[in-house]
Amino acid sequence: MKKIAIIGAGMIGRAWAIVFAKKFKQVVLYDTDHKAIENSILQLSITTQELYKLGLLNDEPNIFIKKISVTNNLKKAIENVDYIQECGPENLEIKKDIFSKLDSIVDKSVAIGSSTSGIKASIFSEGLNHPERFLVVHPVNPPSLVPLVEIVPSEFTDKKIVEFVSGLMNKIEQKPIVVKKEIDGFILNRLQGALLNEAFKLVSMGYVDSYDLDKTVKYGLGLRWSFMGPMETIDLNAPGGISDYAKRYGPIYQNVASELEVKEWNESFYHKVEFEQRQIRSLDDNISRQKWRDKRLMALAKHKKESDKLFGE
Amino acid sequence: MKKIAIIGAGMIGRAWAIVFAKKFKQVVLYDTDHKAIENSILQLSITTQELYKLGLLNDEPNIFIKKISVTNNLKKAIENVDYIQECGPENLEIKKDIFSKLDSIVDKSVAIGSSTSGIKASIFSEGLNHPERFLVVHPVNPPSLVPLVEIVPSEFTDKKIVEFVSGLMNKIEQKPIVVKKEIDGFILNRLQGALLNEAFKLVSMGYVDSYDLDKTVKYGLGLRWSFMGPMETIDLNAPGGISDYAKRYGPIYQNVASELEVKEWNESFYHKVEFEQRQIRSLDDNISRQKWRDKRLMALAKHKKESDKLFGE
Repeated sequence: MKKIAIIGAGMIGRAWAIVFAKKFKQVVLYDTDHKAIENSILQLSITTQELYKLGLLNDEPNIFIKKISVTNNLKKAIENVDYIQECGPENLEIKKDIFSKLDSIVDKSVAIGSSTSGIKASIFSEGLNHPERFLVVHPVNPPSLVPLVEIVPSEFTDKKIVEFVSGLMNKIEQKPIVVKKEIDGFILNRLQGALLNEAFKLVSMGYVDSYDLDKTVKYGLGLRWSFMGPMETIDLNAPGGISDYAKRYGPIYQNVASELEVKEWNESFYHKVEFEQRQIRSLDDNISRQKWRDKRLMALAKHKKESDKLFGE
Repeated sequence: MKKIAIIGAGMIGRAWAIVFAKKFKQVVLYDTDHKAIENSILQLSITTQELYKLGLLNDEPNIFIKKISVTNNLKKAIENVDYIQECGPENLEIKKDIFSKLDSIVDKSVAIGSSTSGIKASIFSEGLNHPERFLVVHPVNPPSLVPLVEIVPSEFTDKKIVEFVSGLMNKIEQKPIVVKKEIDGFILNRLQGALLNEAFKLVSMGYVDSYDLDKTVKYGLGLRWSFMGPMETIDLNAPGGISDYAKRYGPIYQNVASELEVKEWNESFYHKVEFEQRQIRSLDDNISRQKWRDKRLMALAKHKKESDKLFGE
């Protein structure tokens, strides 16, 4: 395997390009938009230098970046390609257009993964000639720093394609999971959604303000979860493991869930959080805070790499 | 302020002792059980040495440990004390006994906090002479590595006592939050419970196995949450902040929550997770895995401290 094509040179596409270029000699980033192409060259150069400084890139940036080319020529992009990662806009019609085109010009043996966070493969691949090679390959942004990838096949996806993409993700040192049946929100956003629903409820009903709610996670709940999952966490928190934990605390959690009346995500539900967040930062300040977040993510990635070596995963 | 008394020399009591001894010259750990007392002296020595090695303790262990004394003499323990942290068994009758005794012999101006994770202050302080000085001060285990503290006053608790305990927690470099109205599970366990309910549902219904579920958090969701709360996370994930995010993704999350039928935490709900966890580790192996977890937590605490300095909190 030699060549990867990425469709869409936006934020996600560029991040995928860096991830693939760590293990592949030829990564082609395709976009129709001239500005996106120009911007991507600049952004790739900035990001690779930052990653290199932190020891998260083996090659020197100048050498590394030569493995990534950018083009607006689709035929050139997909020529002799081994895998295609689609990163177009989150819009069903646009995705269907792209996939229909790819399906007709790319050899049918080539797997095509979509970065979509919300559209099921059974929906975007419906009516295509080769739905068996299409599936969702959903990264977390940015995949260069957050390695989880959700692989979500449709019922039509060939099992060999799922295995191939899992192997590919492992090869580029991402952490793939396989979702066994299609479900709205896949796994990550369902877990996030469950916590967010409870969080908004607690703030909107006046049990806690949103600053203290955030502290609860970043100084409490989120620490273990950055290196252990929630299941391993509770397994280690009772002498008899999961079932012991479930017997001890299950009644409380069940009770909490039963009380969890589903609220509509309307203005009254999020107004208080929005108001409180704007007391700390203006929307303009969010830009620099995003840069701060990415630096912290880089430092955390480096720390996790070192801790994995030192103590094991 | 000079002296802190801790009632109960178990795991939580010992961890509190270390946290308080970072800023107080005199920390007295009280227990009625001889074995607990002996064991605590050994364990404190081990833990302080580990923390020192990682740069998480300013004094040398031999000097540091002199600030903590252990006794089975309650009168001696509470003499001239400035604050009392209760860490007895999680049993209402036992706690009521302890608090009734403390209430009658400790000067009424002294605040008394309970480490309980589940019993409300309005319940355990009912009928006492001075319910206004009692409140929940719930740590995460171990507080020396996970700094969040949930302060949960009852409706009887004096506001000055809440302020005093918040200030005290800040002084010893813990991260306190104040829960404004009593609620089952407080905040942390409600958030954890919401995520666990969804997680068990997804595994028991066959959408994902428990290994992949854990990966979703430890390689994905948990990374940002180890240094940002969930509210800041979504505020930075849409150009227009929280309300923009809520408009974009609210319908999906609301849908996810509506589908979330509450399941009973019975065997069929947790059997699959338990079975799968036991394929990776026997219950005996959980002991060494707990040690691994604590080392990772220490390394993470050190990393966070460094990143706070380098990039800001």
